[in-house]
Amino acid sequence: MGKKASIVLFSGDFDKVMAAYIIANGAAASGMEVTMFFTFWGFNAIKKNKGPIVGAKNWMQKMMGIMNRGGSSRLPLSKFNMGGMGRSMMKKIMKGQNVQTLEELMADAVDLGVKYIACKMTMDVMGISKEDLVPEVKDIVGVATYIAEAKDCDLNLFI
Amino acid sequence: MGKKASIVLFSGDFDKVMAAYIIANGAAASGMEVTMFFTFWGFNAIKKNKGPIVGAKNWMQKMMGIMNRGGSSRLPLSKFNMGGMGRSMMKKIMKGQNVQTLEELMADAVDLGVKYIACKMTMDVMGISKEDLVPEVKDIVGVATYIAEAKDCDLNLFI
Amino acid sequence: MGKKASIVLFSGDFDKVMAAYIIANGAAASGMEVTMFFTFWGFNAIKKNKGPIVGAKNWMQKMMGIMNRGGSSRLPLSKFNMGGMGRSMMKKIMKGQNVQTLEELMADAVDLGVKYIACKMTMDVMGISKEDLVPEVKDIVGVATYIAEAKDCDLNLFI
Repeated sequence: MGKKASIVLFSGDFDKVMAAYIIANGAAASGMEVTMFFTFWGFNAIKKNKGPIVGAKNWMQKMMGIMNRGGSSRLPLSKFNMGGMGRSMMKKIMKGQNVQTLEELMADAVDLGVKYIACKMTMDVMGISKEDLVPEVKDIVGVATYIAEAKDCDLNLFI
Repeated sequence: MGKKASIVLFSGDFDKVMAAYIIANGAAASGMEVTMFFTFWGFNAIKKNKGPIVGAKNWMQKMMGIMNRGGSSRLPLSKFNMGGMGRSMMKKIMKGQNVQTLEELMADAVDLGVKYIACKMTMDVMGISKEDLVPEVKDIVGVATYIAEAKDCDLNLFI
Repeated sequence: MGKKASIVLFSGDFDKVMAAYIIANGAAASGMEVTMFFTFWGFNAIKKNKGPIVGAKNWMQKMMGIMNRGGSSRLPLSKFNMGGMGRSMMKKIMKGQNVQTLEELMADAVDLGVKYIACKMTMDVMGISKEDLVPEVKDIVGVATYIAEAKDCDLNLFI
């Protein structure tokens, strides 16, 4: 039977999301079956890049949705972000070194069959609806689904 | 033989501690044998909520104990904490969505048989004594005990 | 066959690097075969402690190299660093408790046979050359090498 990997993506920082996708795609490219479980700030990676989230139901969720807007193009660096300047510089350097962009990595993940599961509890708390997410997110699940997957994986990471 | 899981709880951030307990309880509820290894800032989750730590022996440990006071009710959000306002808002939103509180998750962990092991070195460094910790912490161990556990686990995470 | 462990060292924070080495050495001491994969900010742990990096090719990499200088003696605490004061205090407390210094842990890792692999992509992006790194770093690899290692490990962590 093939080897399997799971990654919990908890962080919404650009550098950590990049690392998560590079590992996920590397594992999938080597023939592993890969599942990514998006939770908490990790949702920012799979929010659409357009306007504010539509799922927010009260002022607290709306405020959270504005402060924590997300979308792959808005993720901050975990260090030296400096209001986005650090991230812009990092992106420019990466481009100069022919590193794949996050958006290219995300497209590859789909092509390589990386499976996305998204944490229902986070969506309830942050007022994120399915329409707020990129279309490749199909399964909204509880933690039990993640556990059922991870307990049979050969490689599990929390990022 | 049953499946096993281990979680190193290194972080003392409210959101990461919540994630650790949700995963630990989810794993235990699905029949896995779960061990949590508390280290560094992760100790803040298992410090009592009352006054300053009593184990501090010199002014540096006392100062660290004041700045890094801990207790489940004092954990900051890793993002948007804003002196506690962000955390309060997050807790209010969670309550509105009927998400378990951290204290409820911690009580469930005990009921589900999640095993706590606490890092002796951290306690020595931070001047934390056993009296400073919630009573469910029974085993104060070295890293070798964690390794002996983790090497036979099916799911290992560092949070 | 012996048990194996892998650690992705993504963080360059003093406390997290300490944790990574304590776990790596603990695993190696218990007979496990251990691989550390250095990536992103984790490179700061294995940069030499002397002057600026020599691999930087353009002003952006040079600026990054200055801001993110690294070397084991310059790693900040993830919390309460306060421009290095927090780290100094932490180091003093650790010394008082006879905790190994990071440099001692790193020397032990070599003696215990911990294998270092370093992420080629990070080196390209940050303009880090092999001369910028401590001599025990021999293998500059792509993510595929990490995956090939990790998928057969009994303990995998992302720190």
